Amino acid sequence: MTPALLTEEELRAAAGLDIAALEVIERGFAALADGQVIMPPVLRLDVPEKNGEMDVKTAYIRGFPSFALKVSCGFFDNPKKGLPSLGGLMTLLNAETGHVEAVLLDNGYLTDLRTALAGAVAAKYLARKNARVAGVLGTGMQARLQIEALMPVRDIKTVLVWGRNPEHAKSCARAIAEKTGLKTQTRRNAEDVVRNCDILVTTTPAQEPLVKADWLHEGLHVTAMGSDAEDKNELEPNVLLRADRYVCDSAAQVKRLGELHHALKAGILRNDYPVTEIGKIITGAEPGRENDAEITICDLTGTGVQDTAIAVYAFGKLHGMKKPAAATGAG
Amino acid sequence: MTPALLTEEELRAAAGLDIAALEVIERGFAALADGQVIMPPVLRLDVPEKNGEMDVKTAYIRGFPSFALKVSCGFFDNPKKGLPSLGGLMTLLNAETGHVEAVLLDNGYLTDLRTALAGAVAAKYLARKNARVAGVLGTGMQARLQIEALMPVRDIKTVLVWGRNPEHAKSCARAIAEKTGLKTQTRRNAEDVVRNCDILVTTTPAQEPLVKADWLHEGLHVTAMGSDAEDKNELEPNVLLRADRYVCDSAAQVKRLGELHHALKAGILRNDYPVTEIGKIITGAEPGRENDAEITICDLTGTGVQDTAIAVYAFGKLHGMKKPAAATGAG
Repeated sequence: MTPALLTEEELRAAAGLDIAALEVIERGFAALADGQVIMPPVLRLDVPEKNGEMDVKTAYIRGFPSFALKVSCGFFDNPKKGLPSLGGLMTLLNAETGHVEAVLLDNGYLTDLRTALAGAVAAKYLARKNARVAGVLGTGMQARLQIEALMPVRDIKTVLVWGRNPEHAKSCARAIAEKTGLKTQTRRNAEDVVRNCDILVTTTPAQEPLVKADWLHEGLHVTAMGSDAEDKNELEPNVLLRADRYVCDSAAQVKRLGELHHALKAGILRNDYPVTEIGKIITGAEPGRENDAEITICDLTGTGVQDTAIAVYAFGKLHGMKKPAAATGAG
Repeated sequence: MTPALLTEEELRAAAGLDIAALEVIERGFAALADGQVIMPPVLRLDVPEKNGEMDVKTAYIRGFPSFALKVSCGFFDNPKKGLPSLGGLMTLLNAETGHVEAVLLDNGYLTDLRTALAGAVAAKYLARKNARVAGVLGTGMQARLQIEALMPVRDIKTVLVWGRNPEHAKSCARAIAEKTGLKTQTRRNAEDVVRNCDILVTTTPAQEPLVKADWLHEGLHVTAMGSDAEDKNELEPNVLLRADRYVCDSAAQVKRLGELHHALKAGILRNDYPVTEIGKIITGAEPGRENDAEITICDLTGTGVQDTAIAVYAFGKLHGMKKPAAATGAG
């Protein structure tokens, strides 16, 4: 019973930003909102002298054949040595026996994927059906993937890009155009993007709010996915007040780590502010967007549920095609 | 930079119960007692409907080139399906970059090893130099490995074995004799073993105390390694009162999970009862056994430090001999 070993290359070939992958993420969120998930708090190891951190996430989803344990490391002095900051892998465990089924040597690819797919799920339930212009703040990997993930759920025609570094914004816009065939434009400031898009995705590691409540307009949907730690903040707290509908991935997590955390801390929202998990909308327990005038927000912090969902999906696509790992005969 | 993949077979060939492995466990304990370890609390996932649990342990040891993340699953209905209850693996991460260096597909072998080696470390510092008779309560894998691990540190001549099931005790005694060449005897009760040995190792999952204070005698050393959870208890609380020296692997853990936990809970010892970590004795900050009359106890609960130490050791022995994992070309 040697576990299967899946390389990044194989995982990239097996799983991408399509409807089938989106649906498995939806199933995960639905199970979470339905109380069908066992998800312990994140294990965190900080190594201050190396400017490094390790996060370990897991979630057991009832009805899924396996569950994932994901380790992600960020050692932020690596670029000085010419190495990527991030590293990690996922271990897939059988839900009936706890035995290791597979080791997914994805180098963070599945995390990129499940994060972008959560943005697509948010847009599917919360953006206007006739949304045509997507805007993105930030110019990293997620800026590109979030736009790409929107393609199967809305008929996007134009993409507006802003980032603090104009050169990065240009190359991000170029990369999106090449990948999607969409018309892309960079804009001189965040306000210009927010005022002129139907779907806004914020993907920055900002610690000071970038998006002001005054800039919001009727019908806008905002997916805020940059904030996944206590010190990150992309939306000024009034943005949440101004919104007609505030939705999140995990109520427990956004109160601790998300945009909501800052609005609560600032005293702008009360602790009993109604928080709807996206899973409740997926299952039909709560409504999604109800008209074209509403302003909607989805606050995403990233959950172990998504990790298990994407790992199960990718493994399922490859399963049967794989031979188990062979002993390589050293020692 | 594909991680190395090490199989159980390779790890068994590389690392065993010898002095070199013992010394790396000692270094880990010394670092822990010295404040040179970052060890977050264990991540625990319980799956009650499958009678299953997952534990995830890690520890960063300053001065070690890598650190381990260990996942262990116990799904206790597996034997009904003809499968082993336990499963798991270790991931080894580079201490400078956080990148995955190796995946150790050990199926729990390294845990068995580091647990037995901790017993040997305890005996090295706490048992009488002239100890000749080892006694063991329990008949499982650790009963055998603990005795085997003692061989390089004391000149053991005879082994006394007791277990609740006499047949199991016989086959355990036979297995020890075959492996070590020592004279082994089974005894009819635990008392007989305790009264007649120089080094006692308790390796049972008992939830009611097995060892009574009245049975202790001058010069005895006791290693209690069975208790690694709140509900486990091998020594009656008075045993700790009767001992001249009480030592443990991790002060924080024994107060929560070890034999000490029960003595504190019973009110027999006070919360300020002096607890010495074995690492303090290894570094020389505290004395070990000071004469042949003392009764000593070492309370072992199992730590992430040992996991990192044994994983680094095993990987170091194989490193350079291994080719990186090759993509197997599916998808």
